[in-house]
Amino acid sequence: MITKEELQHKIDNKTKPTGSLGKLETLAVQIGLIQNTLSPEIKSPAILVFAADHGLTAEGISPYPKDVTWQMVMNFCSGGAAINVFCKQNGINLKVIDAGVDYDFPDGLPVIPAKIAYGSRNMLKEPAMTMDECRRAMGKGRSFVQEEAQKGCNTIGFGEMGIGNTSPSSLLMHRFTGFSIEECTGRGTGLLPDGVKHKISILKEVSQKYNPQTPEETLATFGGLEIAMMVGAILEAKAQNMIILIDGFIATAAVLTAIQMDAGVRDNAVFCHASEEKGHQLMLKYLHAFPLLRLDMRLGEGTGAALALPILQAAVNFLNQMSSFEAAGVSNKE
Amino acid sequence: MITKEELQHKIDNKTKPTGSLGKLETLAVQIGLIQNTLSPEIKSPAILVFAADHGLTAEGISPYPKDVTWQMVMNFCSGGAAINVFCKQNGINLKVIDAGVDYDFPDGLPVIPAKIAYGSRNMLKEPAMTMDECRRAMGKGRSFVQEEAQKGCNTIGFGEMGIGNTSPSSLLMHRFTGFSIEECTGRGTGLLPDGVKHKISILKEVSQKYNPQTPEETLATFGGLEIAMMVGAILEAKAQNMIILIDGFIATAAVLTAIQMDAGVRDNAVFCHASEEKGHQLMLKYLHAFPLLRLDMRLGEGTGAALALPILQAAVNFLNQMSSFEAAGVSNKE
Repeated sequence: MITKEELQHKIDNKTKPTGSLGKLETLAVQIGLIQNTLSPEIKSPAILVFAADHGLTAEGISPYPKDVTWQMVMNFCSGGAAINVFCKQNGINLKVIDAGVDYDFPDGLPVIPAKIAYGSRNMLKEPAMTMDECRRAMGKGRSFVQEEAQKGCNTIGFGEMGIGNTSPSSLLMHRFTGFSIEECTGRGTGLLPDGVKHKISILKEVSQKYNPQTPEETLATFGGLEIAMMVGAILEAKAQNMIILIDGFIATAAVLTAIQMDAGVRDNAVFCHASEEKGHQLMLKYLHAFPLLRLDMRLGEGTGAALALPILQAAVNFLNQMSSFEAAGVSNKE
Repeated sequence: MITKEELQHKIDNKTKPTGSLGKLETLAVQIGLIQNTLSPEIKSPAILVFAADHGLTAEGISPYPKDVTWQMVMNFCSGGAAINVFCKQNGINLKVIDAGVDYDFPDGLPVIPAKIAYGSRNMLKEPAMTMDECRRAMGKGRSFVQEEAQKGCNTIGFGEMGIGNTSPSSLLMHRFTGFSIEECTGRGTGLLPDGVKHKISILKEVSQKYNPQTPEETLATFGGLEIAMMVGAILEAKAQNMIILIDGFIATAAVLTAIQMDAGVRDNAVFCHASEEKGHQLMLKYLHAFPLLRLDMRLGEGTGAALALPILQAAVNFLNQMSSFEAAGVSNKE
């Protein structure tokens, strides 16, 4: 087994002052440990975007109409969304998956059908998913990652599209971290202060209504179909020993959930971007995570993961390509 | 003339919540204003690395021997340094320029000869440069940028290599911002606390010895040959209306100096990375600059600029390639 010390030793012999590549060094060590090698590689990077609707939107928790979920999936299909642009730029294979959108997509579109239901249920009235729906969503998530692994992908990120999905994320964060609903709840796609107040009151009511015991029950009760599918995908990415690119607030809630089921997930997770969404910073702190980028985005779709890939590539490249002091004939510190 | 409002209007019609691309939106506006277009482009990006030695190293202000300057230039020539790796990764044309290294490089190496002297003078005894040397260095810097512009480059970054060059940078920062020598002075490539104390006492002595009046005299007195060349290069990049990529502590001291000579430089400067070097954060705050990356690096060479290029590319790409709400048939906020 390659140790952290062996990786750090290789890094410290590179022609640069000790520690001067900062977070790139930490990242190179993490990737070397995941791949158990002094010469790691990023192969066929992919981002899976899971889309679904949320019954809770009936309670007015988002400023955008629910129809935006399917409309944005159509936009992903025609290549016009931010995630399309950033994946294309950085050579990332993008897959869009219908986990539970409340819309029947026409045939022939590049959206992968995996609809568990036409959206999750309204949590104010009943759990978001049945245990069976939640398990089927997780299983589908696992299968998509297996497919990517079989094609040689070793680095995978996850995005989401689902109007209303900061609400389930806040509830999962609240349950798993113990932070208050107020601390876990933010503006989402752009609520005004009164809207945030309303969202908080709804989420409090939802939270008090149920008392799930296991992480899986908690996910079924408070999650969403795209979040459950992402949790399954993350667990499988760990099982396949991939580098797992974690995007913003919703993806971090998903990895937090996955960590309750398999603590080893944390070792493979690379936190890509610190979102502007309230609660994200707190959740990152809880996970002792220091994201690579802080671009004040709050968009989701996996955009933070797509933008961070060149940083991961730089970490791997300096480890593989830079000369050592000895090979370059450069004097080290006196 | 394209206005900020026109650019923001185009951005706000993209299929995403208003403001959700954060710093990428600010950057897209800046680049659009520089190029006076709603559809900006990054063309033939280049990084010029200026190398020089510093007479002040005789006073023990760096933990690395002065020979590392020429050794690292040789390393740049053979492609083994961090800046080589990152430029190669991100498609950046890299030029290495001998502004004043205390070494005669063998013929046939890919280092561009522009040696003004075999290093700057020991400032503890006499000004770092004569006015003539400083002007010649600035003129050379201008000419290299003119060459790049003629080849179609519209985005240019600047790096440096010079053992001891955080010291002149601290002095320039002190003179132009009014922050104390203590506030402007850090560990450089890795001084221990006693070394930093010694460096501060030397820099205080140097600072008290001279009273230059103009920005150019200040640069000649306290600068270095690579810094003067970089100042000239920055001024010319502004004259050519290029996007100017500013790297870490030394490059920021150079742009601070250039801004004293042409305040318009600030509009074209993109601050790429917040260095770990003490003083850099303070100087960025003074310039109202919010760097794109915070990777805790302290390496120089232009590495922060090279790593930030994909972020600039993403800003330009989303502006040019994302669909509008109308074109994509996506509903906007209710």
